[in-house]
Amino acid sequence: MSGNDSPVPTDAQLVLRTDRDGVRLLTFNRPAKRNAFNQAMWLAVTEALRDAADDDSVRCVVITGSGASFTAGQDLGEMADPSVFANGEEPGYRALMPVLEEFRKPLVAAVNGVGVGLGLTILPHCDLVFIADTARLKAPFASLGVTTEASASYLLPVTMGWQRAAELLFTEPWVDAPRAVELGLALRCLPEAELLPHALDVAGRIATFALPSLIATKTLMIAARIDAVRAARAREELEFATLVGAAANTAALGGFLNP
Amino acid sequence: MSGNDSPVPTDAQLVLRTDRDGVRLLTFNRPAKRNAFNQAMWLAVTEALRDAADDDSVRCVVITGSGASFTAGQDLGEMADPSVFANGEEPGYRALMPVLEEFRKPLVAAVNGVGVGLGLTILPHCDLVFIADTARLKAPFASLGVTTEASASYLLPVTMGWQRAAELLFTEPWVDAPRAVELGLALRCLPEAELLPHALDVAGRIATFALPSLIATKTLMIAARIDAVRAARAREELEFATLVGAAANTAALGGFLNP
Amino acid sequence: MSGNDSPVPTDAQLVLRTDRDGVRLLTFNRPAKRNAFNQAMWLAVTEALRDAADDDSVRCVVITGSGASFTAGQDLGEMADPSVFANGEEPGYRALMPVLEEFRKPLVAAVNGVGVGLGLTILPHCDLVFIADTARLKAPFASLGVTTEASASYLLPVTMGWQRAAELLFTEPWVDAPRAVELGLALRCLPEAELLPHALDVAGRIATFALPSLIATKTLMIAARIDAVRAARAREELEFATLVGAAANTAALGGFLNP
Repeated sequence: MSGNDSPVPTDAQLVLRTDRDGVRLLTFNRPAKRNAFNQAMWLAVTEALRDAADDDSVRCVVITGSGASFTAGQDLGEMADPSVFANGEEPGYRALMPVLEEFRKPLVAAVNGVGVGLGLTILPHCDLVFIADTARLKAPFASLGVTTEASASYLLPVTMGWQRAAELLFTEPWVDAPRAVELGLALRCLPEAELLPHALDVAGRIATFALPSLIATKTLMIAARIDAVRAARAREELEFATLVGAAANTAALGGFLNP
Repeated sequence: MSGNDSPVPTDAQLVLRTDRDGVRLLTFNRPAKRNAFNQAMWLAVTEALRDAADDDSVRCVVITGSGASFTAGQDLGEMADPSVFANGEEPGYRALMPVLEEFRKPLVAAVNGVGVGLGLTILPHCDLVFIADTARLKAPFASLGVTTEASASYLLPVTMGWQRAAELLFTEPWVDAPRAVELGLALRCLPEAELLPHALDVAGRIATFALPSLIATKTLMIAARIDAVRAARAREELEFATLVGAAANTAALGGFLNP
Repeated sequence: MSGNDSPVPTDAQLVLRTDRDGVRLLTFNRPAKRNAFNQAMWLAVTEALRDAADDDSVRCVVITGSGASFTAGQDLGEMADPSVFANGEEPGYRALMPVLEEFRKPLVAAVNGVGVGLGLTILPHCDLVFIADTARLKAPFASLGVTTEASASYLLPVTMGWQRAAELLFTEPWVDAPRAVELGLALRCLPEAELLPHALDVAGRIATFALPSLIATKTLMIAARIDAVRAARAREELEFATLVGAAANTAALGGFLNP
């Protein structure tokens, strides 16, 4: 379950899968790129989650990252490529989001290292998040000249309160692991060595319950917010489309990619 | 105001009523059954709340339990009886919920002991909850093979955040009194002997305000969430109807009732 | 930037304006009346915010109060005047609220002293609130025989949780600065001398980001709640209209104005 450093995994290796006792562990596996989401990665995660939702032997899913990072979020090299971002967001992003928003089984995250962008905004879509004491999170949308994605404009205020969300988005602090717990981005902070065993242990206990019960409860929780989540994402995509490739974004990407 | 142990109260005794200075104290009074809600109890509480809402001499209501429990929630003997749960929920549940959701006066709870199921999910419907340091709460829907009720699929995430609600529902920990305060299920934890006096004292101070003002403010607070509360409950009832009496529920009830 | 005690500022002086590096500081300046909102003040703040929203040189706005108070909220002398409150709310209130609810740039508050009524209920409309350790807040709607305004019936439960909002509205405690932080009414409590410099420093850092990005993110955050905010205010205005001038309100105003 630990990461490997093969620099060019095939697509099938971009998300590693391991099953045990009703728990499926999915590992983002592009460690040389800090598990950043390029087109292939968006699609591999989408497929992995869809398979887990459809497989009756799976009752609970755990996601984590291989190597030292959870995920660096959007691959900035692709963000700078107008052929990929032709309509303001990656096609792969548009594929993953509905699957994530409607994922009908308990979804546990083991945040093993740095989470940037989607690495932070994916967390309000997870049900139980455990975070390594060495991990830290950041949402650098303003400094990239863009704005929120993954319904963060709705989900961050709901998760942590309006003001703390505004501070996160408008001042872009690094959020360390204890602060992530305070903000409701994670449930508990653990020593790095205990993180994945703990997440798998909790997932294993969840997987002792009957699948119809788990699906009913998750489905009910989702139903209460899905309209707001979808509407927020639709608004975000419109704003994103006007900001990607505009002056501030181009200048920022230039600085990141050619420092 | 303390509990008694007469094992078979008449229906009129299922909810004790005491008035003082604009405050009505309602005591769940089925202590031999840990104040569990059977059909008669659902209807007695419904009637007691409706009377309190309609009585202009009442400005604030306090609910508590007699004996050692707050309430064990749904009477499991009745859940196992298909003639009662013919349509997935007790008729008494369907009677109480709208009265509780729309209760237009300040509603204070003094959680004097164990609260299970409805004993926990009733709390987000109360306005100020005080909890004895010896009390503890649990939401064992998954282990009963069913799912949430009382709009908990909406109200628990709103009250305590998505992840803490998911942990409560998917791992079913006992929630002790200090943790109930952390989770927003209660405002304050008090020594058992001070619980009811404190709740009555706060209620008494609330009752010094003009009734039209109290009703206006409570009505406005309710109006902001009532559609979401009703929609959540309607969805829950559909899921509940498919799970009650199915394999996991029947097996679990067998274990509880014939251990 | 400090307050002055000239007792009758002209309207233009009711809100002082200072610009530096993309940050506009707006100071409520009616210190002899604890910066209470009379008709002229409602309109001066409305105009000041509208101008700040429309001025492309402004990227972030800071509001504070001159003298010892943040703001005492509604001027009670005007509340007692039926010619002003003919329709249940001041016309000036109706002018300010939409501008505040839809303010599309980051809005920082430096709460320098007592905030009563609107002095508290304005805070959930601000994005980052810093509060002096000597400041305190109160929402005395029930004791005035009226009910909430500024969408507080929706925004207070969302900000601090249902029960803590109910306690605030039904028991009317003074909220000191550390408690304001606990309740999510403010982000951080600072020594009085450091308050405004800190708020201006944070605002200055926000103002380093590109304006389109800031506007997009704030607009997205607002979009996710604006319908609920507007609906709450509309309901509040109906309730307010029945309570202003009724027995409890008249008696309470008499006590406040002629103690």
